[in-house]
Amino acid sequence: MSNYQSYEPLTESAAVTLALRLGLFEEKSVLSCTEIGDGNLNLVFRITDQSNNGLIIKQALPYAKVIGESWPLTLDRARIESSAMLKQAETAGEYVPKIYYSDETLAITAMEDLSHLQIARAGLIEGKDFPLLGRHIGEFLGKTLFYSSDFALNPQTKKQLVKQFSNPELCKITEDFVFTDPFFDVESNSFEDELRPAAEAIWNDTKLKLEVAKLKHKFLTEAETLVHGDLHTGSIFADDETTKVIDPEFAYYGPTGFDYGHFTANLLMNAISREEAKQQVLLDHIETAWTVFAGEFSKAWEKDGLEVYTGIDGYLSFILEKTFEDAVGFAGVEIIRRTIGLAHVADLDLIEPHDRKIEAKIRALELGKKLVKHRSSIKTPAQIADYFKQVPVR
Amino acid sequence: MSNYQSYEPLTESAAVTLALRLGLFEEKSVLSCTEIGDGNLNLVFRITDQSNNGLIIKQALPYAKVIGESWPLTLDRARIESSAMLKQAETAGEYVPKIYYSDETLAITAMEDLSHLQIARAGLIEGKDFPLLGRHIGEFLGKTLFYSSDFALNPQTKKQLVKQFSNPELCKITEDFVFTDPFFDVESNSFEDELRPAAEAIWNDTKLKLEVAKLKHKFLTEAETLVHGDLHTGSIFADDETTKVIDPEFAYYGPTGFDYGHFTANLLMNAISREEAKQQVLLDHIETAWTVFAGEFSKAWEKDGLEVYTGIDGYLSFILEKTFEDAVGFAGVEIIRRTIGLAHVADLDLIEPHDRKIEAKIRALELGKKLVKHRSSIKTPAQIADYFKQVPVR
Repeated sequence: MSNYQSYEPLTESAAVTLALRLGLFEEKSVLSCTEIGDGNLNLVFRITDQSNNGLIIKQALPYAKVIGESWPLTLDRARIESSAMLKQAETAGEYVPKIYYSDETLAITAMEDLSHLQIARAGLIEGKDFPLLGRHIGEFLGKTLFYSSDFALNPQTKKQLVKQFSNPELCKITEDFVFTDPFFDVESNSFEDELRPAAEAIWNDTKLKLEVAKLKHKFLTEAETLVHGDLHTGSIFADDETTKVIDPEFAYYGPTGFDYGHFTANLLMNAISREEAKQQVLLDHIETAWTVFAGEFSKAWEKDGLEVYTGIDGYLSFILEKTFEDAVGFAGVEIIRRTIGLAHVADLDLIEPHDRKIEAKIRALELGKKLVKHRSSIKTPAQIADYFKQVPVR
Repeated sequence: MSNYQSYEPLTESAAVTLALRLGLFEEKSVLSCTEIGDGNLNLVFRITDQSNNGLIIKQALPYAKVIGESWPLTLDRARIESSAMLKQAETAGEYVPKIYYSDETLAITAMEDLSHLQIARAGLIEGKDFPLLGRHIGEFLGKTLFYSSDFALNPQTKKQLVKQFSNPELCKITEDFVFTDPFFDVESNSFEDELRPAAEAIWNDTKLKLEVAKLKHKFLTEAETLVHGDLHTGSIFADDETTKVIDPEFAYYGPTGFDYGHFTANLLMNAISREEAKQQVLLDHIETAWTVFAGEFSKAWEKDGLEVYTGIDGYLSFILEKTFEDAVGFAGVEIIRRTIGLAHVADLDLIEPHDRKIEAKIRALELGKKLVKHRSSIKTPAQIADYFKQVPVR
């Protein structure tokens, strides 16, 4: 691969040199730099001047840290990530960081520093509510998902984008660790001993696995629109007024419901970790995000639908219903894999004491199974909330 | 496009020169050549020696003849066509012509001469039955459609194939002239005056158009497997013992049911043109093709299913049911577009006298509408046959 010829991981001082070369700071600035990455796949440098103006330089690593250097990963994901952010910015610029520069050979992207915001997952775990989170994510999804689809684009343009965002290696991570391994007794899974009976029940639940198979088939085959591909609360920066979606390195043409499903699943897992009185705000975010998504998508459909069938009565409702049903299924799969699969969420893992954590995880698994199995009869976010409230704690 | 730089249409003598250069005939052969193309998009040269050994050289034209030179068409379809035939030959070699040579710059493919066989449509119109047609097409589809899918392939390999077979321009022809124009009052449509009320009924049938919209969405988004993309009876050479599928220039990653749907539609249109006593053999072909397809697909699924979920009870049935339902819908759309859209079939157009032709076409439209609208309750080829027999002649 010619891309690898002059690739090397940046050091902090190399990142500073690059920032100066790019002219993104005033000429005589004194810059300092810290590597702040806590992900598994990238280096993230924050560079600041003496007035604390910041810049982020993100660089893809040619391997996955979670498994060690032995698992190589394409650097092409840096291209996917910066291209996806630029594409999202065309219609939903207020919800993504500004991109200043990208270099495919070094697999780097220089972008807006969002350090004044907080990763939504961390804030939610502290008990914050982020009052505009649902509204902003709904608007982000309504715009980005409509305008990349065959409803808005000439299908020939869309097919070029499908090729541009073909993302086999990152999709493989989702295919394996989201849709497959958690549903089989394989080594990559990770969970507390007390969860073994619940995990075994999942591995033996043929009806559940049939439904997961159908959802995986959708993930593999339905090139509906350019999805973010990894829209959990760790991919969102927020405060009380602002929301920014980051890290679209898993972006590819997939099912329209995928992102809302993952967002919903991650809010539900946070809700499970909270005392009852503080849960409703998260269920409200789930409802608001859908309502705003559907509203934005519908507005764009009416205004900018290029596909002539967008004028046919009933077609928009059909697409929204399909999207919601898919999303509910994807949410269920995400909850299950985050509980017994390889990659967990802190929302559940940090619950104390241990017994409460185990109870919460068992509740999460029950909820996940119900969402997958009953998705065709779950038509509204309110019904998701009902299932959430009904799931028994053992 | 660099491909165009040295492209020029072959003359008959240039085709002979090429055949000699390729060494596909003995050195001192005396070759003759005739252009036998009757399609709209290509030149087809048949080259024979003094012993009547033949060779076909097919060359894509950079425009569509049906519209005139003003409608340019990518020469890349020659690459798609020869690549698709080579891919099909990996698993179903007995049902495709041998490929000897291809040249992307000249957009030519040199392949086995099948002149001893007859185009199936022509034979069916003459009243021939081609006793093995259903069985052979079923086997061809079972093998080619399974082994190009995510069930058989590593999903990363499949994603490379999706890119290789990205076919925007030829798909556009299907998107426009199959799924769109026939359902709206636009200039490209073509039909006898007597059909105007029936055509207008279709254009005003919102329920029908909603179902066609859903089928078009499947065509646009569901990258399940490498389909032939244009499997009508004019794309099949046959005699009593042999069947060969040709012309996969529309090949792309699409819904598994697409090809069986088109094959079925074209047999149904031929059946409509026949006297009642001679129809059953075609309905039998439709049934046999499905049974053999499902059998081959299932055998391959059991034997070579790489996807781990192929081991889950109920998944194969689900996929076959989805495939059949989609196919029934695609068959209905194909029948309608061949009756009032731009490109007709001789089976219906040659019916005499005129009144009988009009009756047959009205019957075709009724059948097409029923297949589209009722596809979710049509579960077997026998039910297709029932609908065929029940459709009233006005």
